Amino acid sequence: MSNLSDTKNIFFLNTELPVNFSIELSNDIFNPNNKDLLSYGVLGLNARRILIIDLKVSRLYLDYIKKYFKANNINCSVVIIDATEQNKNIETLLYLLGEIESIGPNRKNEPLIAVGGGALLDIVGMAAGMYRRGIPYIKVPTTLLGIVDASIGVKTGINFKDRRNRLGSYYPPISAYLDKTFLKTLDLIEISSGLGEILKLAIIKDLDLFKILSKHGRDLYNKKFIDCIYADEVISRSIRGMRDELQDNLWEKNLKRYVDFGHSFSPIPELRSLKDKNVPTLTHGQAVTLDVIFSSIISLYRGMLSKTDVLKIVKTARSMNLPTNHPYFNNPDILMEALNDTIKHRNGDQNLPIPTSIGKSIFINDLTFEDVQAASMMMKEINNE
Amino acid sequence: MSNLSDTKNIFFLNTELPVNFSIELSNDIFNPNNKDLLSYGVLGLNARRILIIDLKVSRLYLDYIKKYFKANNINCSVVIIDATEQNKNIETLLYLLGEIESIGPNRKNEPLIAVGGGALLDIVGMAAGMYRRGIPYIKVPTTLLGIVDASIGVKTGINFKDRRNRLGSYYPPISAYLDKTFLKTLDLIEISSGLGEILKLAIIKDLDLFKILSKHGRDLYNKKFIDCIYADEVISRSIRGMRDELQDNLWEKNLKRYVDFGHSFSPIPELRSLKDKNVPTLTHGQAVTLDVIFSSIISLYRGMLSKTDVLKIVKTARSMNLPTNHPYFNNPDILMEALNDTIKHRNGDQNLPIPTSIGKSIFINDLTFEDVQAASMMMKEINNE
Repeated sequence: MSNLSDTKNIFFLNTELPVNFSIELSNDIFNPNNKDLLSYGVLGLNARRILIIDLKVSRLYLDYIKKYFKANNINCSVVIIDATEQNKNIETLLYLLGEIESIGPNRKNEPLIAVGGGALLDIVGMAAGMYRRGIPYIKVPTTLLGIVDASIGVKTGINFKDRRNRLGSYYPPISAYLDKTFLKTLDLIEISSGLGEILKLAIIKDLDLFKILSKHGRDLYNKKFIDCIYADEVISRSIRGMRDELQDNLWEKNLKRYVDFGHSFSPIPELRSLKDKNVPTLTHGQAVTLDVIFSSIISLYRGMLSKTDVLKIVKTARSMNLPTNHPYFNNPDILMEALNDTIKHRNGDQNLPIPTSIGKSIFINDLTFEDVQAASMMMKEINNE
Repeated sequence: MSNLSDTKNIFFLNTELPVNFSIELSNDIFNPNNKDLLSYGVLGLNARRILIIDLKVSRLYLDYIKKYFKANNINCSVVIIDATEQNKNIETLLYLLGEIESIGPNRKNEPLIAVGGGALLDIVGMAAGMYRRGIPYIKVPTTLLGIVDASIGVKTGINFKDRRNRLGSYYPPISAYLDKTFLKTLDLIEISSGLGEILKLAIIKDLDLFKILSKHGRDLYNKKFIDCIYADEVISRSIRGMRDELQDNLWEKNLKRYVDFGHSFSPIPELRSLKDKNVPTLTHGQAVTLDVIFSSIISLYRGMLSKTDVLKIVKTARSMNLPTNHPYFNNPDILMEALNDTIKHRNGDQNLPIPTSIGKSIFINDLTFEDVQAASMMMKEINNE
C-alpha cells in the first residue's frame, strides 16, 4: 500500500490485486476419473460449465470430452470456434460473447473451459475478461505452443486492423492444465511451431535446454513428445523459464523483456504471410524462429555472438524442421516497418533482446537501418553456406 | 505473495498488481496556466495527446480546450463521440479503437484524455484498457454523476445485447481531475441525476450527508453547485465515501457491496426506458433513485426502516427533482426479471443492500416474489399520499 494520504483537494486510491494461479501437468485431463478440471467451481445438482473448443480439436475429441462431463454430472454447453490466426478477430470475439450471454453463466462459480491452441486461448481469455468485467476461465492447451507459451502468462488478445494482438488484456485464468497426450494428434508443423518458442527461450536464457534441443530436438519433433526421453524435462524447463520471466513483470510495466526475443521483427511478417500468396505462410513459432535467427545475426554483425553459435542455432532450428530464411527477412523495408511498430509498443524504445552467447542476452537500443540491411544480407548468405 | 511453491507437476505463478491513482479537485482544468493535466506523460518537442470528448461537451468547450493544448505546445488529436447511453455500445467502442489505432499513440507516455460524462468515461476506459492491452488514460468528468461516481472507480464498460455494462473491465486511470466549473453548463436533469447517486450514498452510509441534502438539495440543484454553500462538502463527502467503499474491493471479489444500493432493480428499467415510448425515459441517477426508494420500501415492509424515514427519503428526492415512482416499479414482473439478472451478476446471491435507518444498512438474501409485489404496491400508495 502506498502511504499517500488525502488532502483537502486530492483523494488517493491505493490498493493491489493479488494474482495466483497454477499451471499443472495433468495427463488425460478428460478421463472421467481425472478430477483436476472440477477442482474449481460449483458441483452437484444443476452444475454447469461452458466448454469453448477449437473446431479442429472438437472433431477429434468432442465426443470423449462430452462423456467426461456426462460421467461427472455436469450440464455442459459447447461453443465451437474455428480459432485460426485469421479468425482471431473482433467478429469471432463478439460471436463468442453472444454465445456466453445466451447461456448466461453465473459470475464466479461456473468457469469457462477453453480447449485449444494459443489462438483459442487468447480469444477465450479476452472474452472471459470482458464478460461482466471478468468471469473465471480455465485453460486447457492442446498444442505444444499452447503448453509452453499461452498457458503461462495472462495475456489475451485478438488481431485488429491487420496488427497482431492489437486489442487484448491481462486477465489471469483460474489455472492451466497441460495434457501432453493431445500432442499425439497434432500436425507436425504445429510441433515445430511450439519448438520455435522453446528454442527462443533456450537461446535467451537456458544453455542446458539448448543443448537438449540440439541433441534431441529432431527426436522430440518426430515423436511429438510422446514416449520420448527429455520430453518432460523440455516442457518443465520451458514452463519454469517462462514463469520466472513473466512473474515479476506480469503487466509489462517494464518493457525490457527477454521473452520478447523473437517477437521484435516477427509480428508483421507472421500476419502478412497469411494473406500474401507470394511467400510461404508462417506459423507463430516459425515467425519467431526467423526473428531469433535474424536477431542472432545482428549480434554476430555487432561482434558479440560467435559465428559458431549462429550456425549451431541455424542447425538446431533445421533439425526441428523450422525455417531459417524467408523472403520477408531478406527485405529490410518490411523489417524496419515491423521494428517501428515494435518501438511504439515498447514506448519509443527498441529494447531488442540480443544473445551474446547461447543462454545469455542483453538489450540493444541503437539498431540502424544500415544494421538491418547488413543483417538481412548476412541471413541470406548464412543460409546459402 | 503466496507461499505456494512448485512441485514436479505443478508450477505456481504468484504476484500482485499495485494500483494507485489520485482523484483531484482542479478548477478550470483547461485554463492554459493550469498544469494538472500535463503532470503525466511526455512533454516538449513533438509532445502528443489524444483528446476524446463527448459531442455535447465539444460544442461548448472544444475551442477553449484546443487553445489550452496549443498554449502548452501539445499536438492534440481530437476524437468526438456522441456518448449517449444508447451509443454506449460495441460500434462506438470499435470506432474509437479504430481512431486510436490510426493516430498510433506510444504505449506509456501519451495518455488519452477523456472529457465527458459517465458514458464517455466508461467507453474511453474500456478502449484504453484494450488497446495494446492497456494504455494510460486520464478522466475529466464534465457531469455531476461523472464527478461523484465514474471518476472514482476502475470500472469501464459498454452495453451489450440490451444489458447494461454487460461487457467491460476494471482498468484504473492515471488520475481523475474534477472540475466543478463544467457544471454551470450542465442540463438540470443531469444535475438531478448526479444528486441521485449522492442520495444513494447518503442513505446507505452517511447520515450527515443526507441531512445536508434534505436541507440544501433544492439549492444545490437550482444553482448547479455553483456559488453554493455545501457544494464542496457534498462533493468531497461523496468522493471520500465512494473511495472508502471501493478501495478494498476494487475488483469486486466480494459481491456484498453497499454501493450496489440502487443498482439491484434499476439496470433493466433504465436501459429499457430508453426504447419504450410508453414510459418516461430514465437517466441513470433517476433509475438509481427509484431503486433506492423501492429498496427502502422493502425495508419498511420488512419492519426495519421506519415510515418516517421512507417519507424523508421521498421528500428529499422530490426536492432535487428526482422521480419517486415509475410504471416499471409498479410492475413486479419487470422487477423480478431485473432481480434475477442481478442475482446472476452476484453469482447466485441476492446480496440486496437495504437501509435499516438512514445512514445504516444491511444485506438481505431472502426476498420473494410476494415481497416484490407488496413493495411495488406500497410504492404506488406512498406516492399517492
